[in-house]
Amino acid sequence: MNERRLDARTGEWVTYSTVRQDRTFLPPTDHCPLCPTTDPSAPTEIPRSDFQIAVFENRFPPLVAHPPRPSMPRSAATPIAEAVGAAEVVVYSPDHERPLGAMPVPRIQRVIDVWADRYAALGARDDIDYVMIFENRGVEIGVTLHHPHGQIYGFPDIPSRPALELQTAFANLEATDRCVWCDSVAIERADGARMLIENESFAAFVPFAARFPYESHVVSRRHASSLLDITTPERALLADLLKQLLTGFDRLFDRPMPYVMAMHQAPTREGVALAASHFHMEYLPPYRSRDRLKYLAGAELGGGAFINDTAPEATAADLRAAIAAA
Amino acid sequence: MNERRLDARTGEWVTYSTVRQDRTFLPPTDHCPLCPTTDPSAPTEIPRSDFQIAVFENRFPPLVAHPPRPSMPRSAATPIAEAVGAAEVVVYSPDHERPLGAMPVPRIQRVIDVWADRYAALGARDDIDYVMIFENRGVEIGVTLHHPHGQIYGFPDIPSRPALELQTAFANLEATDRCVWCDSVAIERADGARMLIENESFAAFVPFAARFPYESHVVSRRHASSLLDITTPERALLADLLKQLLTGFDRLFDRPMPYVMAMHQAPTREGVALAASHFHMEYLPPYRSRDRLKYLAGAELGGGAFINDTAPEATAADLRAAIAAA
Repeated sequence: MNERRLDARTGEWVTYSTVRQDRTFLPPTDHCPLCPTTDPSAPTEIPRSDFQIAVFENRFPPLVAHPPRPSMPRSAATPIAEAVGAAEVVVYSPDHERPLGAMPVPRIQRVIDVWADRYAALGARDDIDYVMIFENRGVEIGVTLHHPHGQIYGFPDIPSRPALELQTAFANLEATDRCVWCDSVAIERADGARMLIENESFAAFVPFAARFPYESHVVSRRHASSLLDITTPERALLADLLKQLLTGFDRLFDRPMPYVMAMHQAPTREGVALAASHFHMEYLPPYRSRDRLKYLAGAELGGGAFINDTAPEATAADLRAAIAAA
Repeated sequence: MNERRLDARTGEWVTYSTVRQDRTFLPPTDHCPLCPTTDPSAPTEIPRSDFQIAVFENRFPPLVAHPPRPSMPRSAATPIAEAVGAAEVVVYSPDHERPLGAMPVPRIQRVIDVWADRYAALGARDDIDYVMIFENRGVEIGVTLHHPHGQIYGFPDIPSRPALELQTAFANLEATDRCVWCDSVAIERADGARMLIENESFAAFVPFAARFPYESHVVSRRHASSLLDITTPERALLADLLKQLLTGFDRLFDRPMPYVMAMHQAPTREGVALAASHFHMEYLPPYRSRDRLKYLAGAELGGGAFINDTAPEATAADLRAAIAAA
């Protein structure tokens, strides 16, 4: 069963994919499906003995180019749709043990180039309105494969969180003719208390109203709506900043920091105002201290209201120290 | 530090409460702060040797009646507000080992009466717009105290998830003059494939577009906007249905089922249309199978787009069998 259903009580689409229930779960290192193939009689997902970066379709996809027919006919009582879209895996390197932040800057830059290429290619499809590039890292947030990799989903609509950002940014543009993300960067740089690191083109900070204790946003300093607007020299600066930030994350508790990373870019649906889209990456680590996870529970799941047990200024200071020490 | 901050990029308020960072974490059973006080020299949170149901203010509250001044002045760059509201704990019984579903029906009904009383009392406060009654159960969703208990937050605004429901219900009312929740109950009863259990006044089902595999909603069959609209005989029926549902949850994997329960009722802000509020309780268990948790990761946290690896009709059949066997 692979389909999408609309919750008429919230207006939200939920994607169903039962093939995912049986997906590969934390295989032993010598059976990693994301490593290069060393024994042709036992190929991995990548049928080559070496590669730089590999991109391929997720074997257990929630969204696919040619979805099956939904499990029941569409009606007023059953608002259902095909799970059309894309789900890709981006393997950052052949090295099973080397996370993105430990790669040399030029190799990180190549990953950024691949992200940009896939954003363009998937975004060009008529049936994809939004390309979300993301990374899930660490068993704490449910990772099933340890080999450093990210993912890309091509959605047939604009998912609700980027949609909320776009709606808010658009309302702000209408009211003030200003980009709320450009303003956010200016505010954080002027204040400084939540800044982590910056260069000519990008700023990383714990946002003023962070949902997660160590939430960190990487935001383009100028108004760029997607990676396609970001030049080669800027990509080098982004790679350098990501390396410092990710190294700092792992230094904070002296162990690999789990996180969700979500990149928000312009929707690829025609006619969407690029002025309301501002390229940024959101890093959401699940820890609230070295030993305590931040769980999403009644307030967050039932209310959509985040409770954060830490002051953003304090967690930013922790992260700044970790980045400086790394 | 205890305050609320607005994320200008999303329009969402986040609540900060650093006292919570040091809250009691899984104390040994003989030091349970929610048990009755047996040794007056070592009082628990409840200074009595026995009680039926206890309600008191959370010792580590995110929202309080008399909040401190925020950490910085409010300005365009720092949209900040006092963390005014309420945070209460509802201890279901003195019995440390007996969850709500194992209590006799009349005692569950008394808990419902207490919920209704607190909804009325907190809702009467001018500074509280929304009363959310909820329960977090199980270490899997971050519970820090095992003694069966629920919580109540009084919010100074309508939190984003109930706000989305209200907005959707209101738009539907405007367009069709029908309550989307009343329709939802009718659709689920007519279809039957996702129904779990029902009586004259309440229906429990896995919703058509469930976000979580074993998500179960308990919905009033007639249009009641809050527990205050629900009569004593109806409360008895609700207690009976909750007992069956919760017993079924624990039967499903033959162990206590963790869950988040969130009760959605009418906002208590003046002037809100009660016609758009339909009493319901959402149970969100975090498992996708006996051994696998459903994690919220890139799609959900970064996109607000839920991926569900199970068919609601299949999980409903599992739960129906568990309820029947319980």
